[in-house]
Amino acid sequence: MSTFAKGLEGVVAAETRMSFIDGEKGILEYVGIPIDSLARNSTFEETVFLLWNTRLPNKAELDALSKQIRSRTKLPPKLIDIIKGMPTDAQPMHVLRTAVSALSLFDPKPNLTDIPSAQEKALNILAQIPTIIAAFDRYRRGLEIVEPRTDLTFAQNFLYMLNGKEPTEAMARGFDICMILHADHGLNNSTFTARVVTSTLSDMYSAITAAIGSLRGPLHGGANEEVMEMLNEIPSLEAVEPYIMGKLAKKERIMGFGHRVYKTIDPRATFLKTFAKQIAADTGNQKLYEMSTKIEQIMAREVGAKGIYPNVDFYSATTYHSIGLKLDLFTPMFAMSRVSGWAGHCIEQLSDNRLYRPAAKYVGPHDAPYVEMGKR
Amino acid sequence: MSTFAKGLEGVVAAETRMSFIDGEKGILEYVGIPIDSLARNSTFEETVFLLWNTRLPNKAELDALSKQIRSRTKLPPKLIDIIKGMPTDAQPMHVLRTAVSALSLFDPKPNLTDIPSAQEKALNILAQIPTIIAAFDRYRRGLEIVEPRTDLTFAQNFLYMLNGKEPTEAMARGFDICMILHADHGLNNSTFTARVVTSTLSDMYSAITAAIGSLRGPLHGGANEEVMEMLNEIPSLEAVEPYIMGKLAKKERIMGFGHRVYKTIDPRATFLKTFAKQIAADTGNQKLYEMSTKIEQIMAREVGAKGIYPNVDFYSATTYHSIGLKLDLFTPMFAMSRVSGWAGHCIEQLSDNRLYRPAAKYVGPHDAPYVEMGKR
Repeated sequence: MSTFAKGLEGVVAAETRMSFIDGEKGILEYVGIPIDSLARNSTFEETVFLLWNTRLPNKAELDALSKQIRSRTKLPPKLIDIIKGMPTDAQPMHVLRTAVSALSLFDPKPNLTDIPSAQEKALNILAQIPTIIAAFDRYRRGLEIVEPRTDLTFAQNFLYMLNGKEPTEAMARGFDICMILHADHGLNNSTFTARVVTSTLSDMYSAITAAIGSLRGPLHGGANEEVMEMLNEIPSLEAVEPYIMGKLAKKERIMGFGHRVYKTIDPRATFLKTFAKQIAADTGNQKLYEMSTKIEQIMAREVGAKGIYPNVDFYSATTYHSIGLKLDLFTPMFAMSRVSGWAGHCIEQLSDNRLYRPAAKYVGPHDAPYVEMGKR
Repeated sequence: MSTFAKGLEGVVAAETRMSFIDGEKGILEYVGIPIDSLARNSTFEETVFLLWNTRLPNKAELDALSKQIRSRTKLPPKLIDIIKGMPTDAQPMHVLRTAVSALSLFDPKPNLTDIPSAQEKALNILAQIPTIIAAFDRYRRGLEIVEPRTDLTFAQNFLYMLNGKEPTEAMARGFDICMILHADHGLNNSTFTARVVTSTLSDMYSAITAAIGSLRGPLHGGANEEVMEMLNEIPSLEAVEPYIMGKLAKKERIMGFGHRVYKTIDPRATFLKTFAKQIAADTGNQKLYEMSTKIEQIMAREVGAKGIYPNVDFYSATTYHSIGLKLDLFTPMFAMSRVSGWAGHCIEQLSDNRLYRPAAKYVGPHDAPYVEMGKR
């Protein structure tokens, strides 16, 4: 029996054909294609095809997948009733986890795990997550729920359902890029969770629900919301230096910096920085962008030598804010994209399954007596 | 970097003070006390105290815990509405996962992970799972939902809410013993799932919801339902031999036999066998018990030498059936007990946390070009 690998650091727990990360060199590839190249040229729908089929689609294949997604975006009416029965002050990640779990109730055969059935269920969940998030957000704001449209892309349709009007081209493209960048990232905690659950031959709903629960955590997907909270706390560009230096002096964590895997700049952050600059300028959020670059400069000067660089959460906060998304929708946006990676990993797991059943090291007493109540 | 540990077999992924398993010798202890001794002498409530505090309670402490559980068994009225909005043909494990997830929506501070808050949330979930299961079962049968009673034990109250009348002493005791036997079992898949989710500092609702999804799988908690399905397929005692031999000849799996950890008889099965015999006799289910022992004899003769013995699922099927539980409630019964172990492990994880983030071995191409659509 091996020694205790706390947090399973350095333990290889699965094989994958989807994404490759070189944390030393700052490389991220999906099926061999550098992330930067995909962010510049691809779309989220094409990225989903790439991850699920480990190759790029031809035109007919991409059209077919897009059509399949668009045809599944409507929610079961009873699920809309369930959403409307939720408290309006509920937090969107808890709502999303609950509603994705509830999708299984409307599937006549939720438990099938043969590959075609699993793919079918993955497609349903991927198509319905944006509708769930938009429906709850409209409901809590006291607005009519907007029905999905089948003539829009994944990114356009979500922003349309959320705002009740079509997004500008720049907004939709910016959002689509965020979806591409967040789609898959090796065995991160939520992806690992999805594979662990799948390994009992449990269903796609159980696996994705579990992964959403993992992503909620502040050490995982919840971090992008905390970046924005930090930015909101700093009153001006001049206040950045004393704010960050004060936090560093108290050894407090600066959200959006550092990553278990990357020892250099996160390649997603590099691309997102350029993009965040443009969208911030387009939407009058330059101050936010300037504050972000200022924080980055201070961090590079103070802790860059320790390998602490911006991660994907850092500039995605500015981007999402500029697009007009409310703070508590940032992590749901992450889930909306990462579900593609989760589902792909579940299918990889099903294709060559072995139940995850690690050992625990027991550190308590042995062969203890059951002492009668009167003698305790 | 270590080599690929498929299914993490042999990898120590956590330390625990709760349960100890020696699979070679067939030993299971909770905090050092042999499971047999607990099943004979203890109650589920006392076992929960033992697991969560790593010692037996005195009378005042046990009374306080029982009172705390009893005071939390009522569901939020809006959650009852959500349950009543579910399709009546939904499967109880999907319902349970969804309803436990929904509990978070009614908690004004669902995300707190300091130890006292986590314990508080664990207590709520533990107290409300029986009410959820009974409420859905009554609703789908077209019966009035029965409110919980605060003058009954955990086991009595569940059977009362399910059947609308108090159980006999023997039924309640039998059920309570099943709860004790299923409470904790090292780093089984669902418990591991709960710890992995907790390690992102996500909340108790997310962790327990994820664990329920894992338990649903046929390779984990779902197995007890499959044992019963097998017993239902065999028409008579005489048909057992040809049925089992036929399955073995086709190399099909016999549900309820074999365990990743135990290489001898599962100590929970030993105890449960004695108990199943008695309750089957009391309830006129002798035939079922005799069929079970016949299967056990054939399996011992045919594959006993390979270390394939009955596991806890095998005799729990007969027990639950004799108590009058419907087949699709068997796995929810497992969840109702195991939530004590899950929550205990989440709290252990929070007490000494490190994010689970294993590595993946990438087996695809590298540095691939993004080929334009027209050139694919």
